[in-house]
Amino acid sequence: MKKIEAIIRKTKFDEVADELREAGIEFFSFWDVRGVGQTRQERIYRGVVYDTSTIERTMLSIIVRDKNVEKTVLAIMKAARTGEIGDGKVFISGIEESYRIRTGEYGDESLFIKGKEE
Amino acid sequence: MKKIEAIIRKTKFDEVADELREAGIEFFSFWDVRGVGQTRQERIYRGVVYDTSTIERTMLSIIVRDKNVEKTVLAIMKAARTGEIGDGKVFISGIEESYRIRTGEYGDESLFIKGKEE
Amino acid sequence: MKKIEAIIRKTKFDEVADELREAGIEFFSFWDVRGVGQTRQERIYRGVVYDTSTIERTMLSIIVRDKNVEKTVLAIMKAARTGEIGDGKVFISGIEESYRIRTGEYGDESLFIKGKEE
Ligand SMILES: Nc1ncnc2c1ncn2[C@@H]1O[C@H](COP(=O)(O)OP(=O)(O)OP(=O)(O)O)[C@@H](O)[C@H]1O
Ligand SMILES: Nc1ncnc2c1ncn2[C@@H]1O[C@H](COP(=O)(O)OP(=O)(O)OP(=O)(O)O)[C@@H](O)[C@H]1O
Ligand SMILES: Nc1ncnc2c1ncn2[C@@H]1O[C@H](COP(=O)(O)OP(=O)(O)OP(=O)(O)O)[C@@H](O)[C@H]1O
Ligand SMILES: [Mg+2]
Ligand SMILES: [Mg+2]
Ligand SMILES: [Mg+2]
Repeated sequence: MKKIEAIIRKTKFDEVADELREAGIEFFSFWDVRGVGQTRQERIYRGVVYDTSTIERTMLSIIVRDKNVEKTVLAIMKAARTGEIGDGKVFISGIEESYRIRTGEYGDESLFIKGKEE
Repeated sequence: MKKIEAIIRKTKFDEVADELREAGIEFFSFWDVRGVGQTRQERIYRGVVYDTSTIERTMLSIIVRDKNVEKTVLAIMKAARTGEIGDGKVFISGIEESYRIRTGEYGDESLFIKGKEE
Repeated sequence: MKKIEAIIRKTKFDEVADELREAGIEFFSFWDVRGVGQTRQERIYRGVVYDTSTIERTMLSIIVRDKNVEKTVLAIMKAARTGEIGDGKVFISGIEESYRIRTGEYGDESLFIKGKEE
């Protein structure tokens, strides 16, 4: 099990959520964050001055089975990208255990719904 | 040291906090999150249609010593459970180091108050 | 790569951000959290009764290269400290991979800007 944290433009949230659903990733949590990046000094990129300090960001936290890491990252990278400074970041870390509170299920089983997915 | 992240129903917060205190877990952080789960497709469970998209969630982040992991998880699982779709999840991951800013203490020592707990 | 999570007094945010910038740490995310600490029972420290339940906290999440962990922690510990009960905590954990969405860069490269830093 892995945790995928993505910090994306708030304006890209719906596209990312759609792309994740298409990839079969149905569960995640999200909240608003603010970011300090190349925000304090304005930054010039291809002749344009960027001040990213005011970009609103959304943090997504998605716990997935190992076999779903790659497609989750690809879905986010595809849908969150504009190509302009400030598109955000994706971070991967390990998760040692997971429980579904309602049933007490744990491990991979707690991360998908039986009958709905292989 | 481990991090326990729990995503619970907002309405269950007080019960969970009480149960944690009774288990001797006195420190944690929390904030509001929203979740995408079986939210996009309504889901039928025991004849009832659930749309969990509107359930407000609270994220709890609790860093505990290894010896306290089990009782923390049990306290959350007990208090956060309604038995209906959407009760939430608990995730465990590793923490490599911890510091108490006021004193500079680190390691297990930074996670409890001397004299108050063994 | 490591993740440094710091829970600090909201009133200390600007000082911490400045100290991080001086240490060369230019990227991080942050959001408001609330904390349960020695908050439920008031706590007496050097003769003063502290009720930390009402202290507003900010969570900082900073992913850095291994070589920058120490200076990041030191910057936070220095700037966030008042010496009074409730200054907060710093936690370190491992990050397995990082991606910059705009460019697809990954690994250490995704964490700094070429030409700006060694
Ligand atoms: N190392 C980091 N740790 C934590 N959060 C980060 C980190 N880097 C970026 N972020 C978060 O992501 C947001 C967007 O970052 P941003 O896309 O500007 O990254 P970048 O590396 O500067 O890429 P770009 O060159 O495309 O701007 C930041 O405002 C911050 O919230
Ligand atoms: N894999 C996951 N990664 C991140 N957050 C998740 C994940 N699964 C669930 N969550 C969060 O927990 C909330 C509640 O999930 P929920 O209880 O519906 O899980 P579930 O597995 O669908 O269990 P149930 O079958 O009881 O509904 C979601 O809205 C989301 O915020
Ligand atoms: N173990 C923990 N897990 C998660 N969050 C924590 C933990 N300990 C503290 N926090 C967060 O940090 C905030 C501040 O904690 P606080 O500074 O009171 O820690 P402390 O160990 O009690 O130190 P002090 O003795 O200086 O008060 C808490 O309100 C909570 O949000
Ligand atoms: Mg940037
Ligand atoms: Mg559900
Ligand atoms: Mg305290």
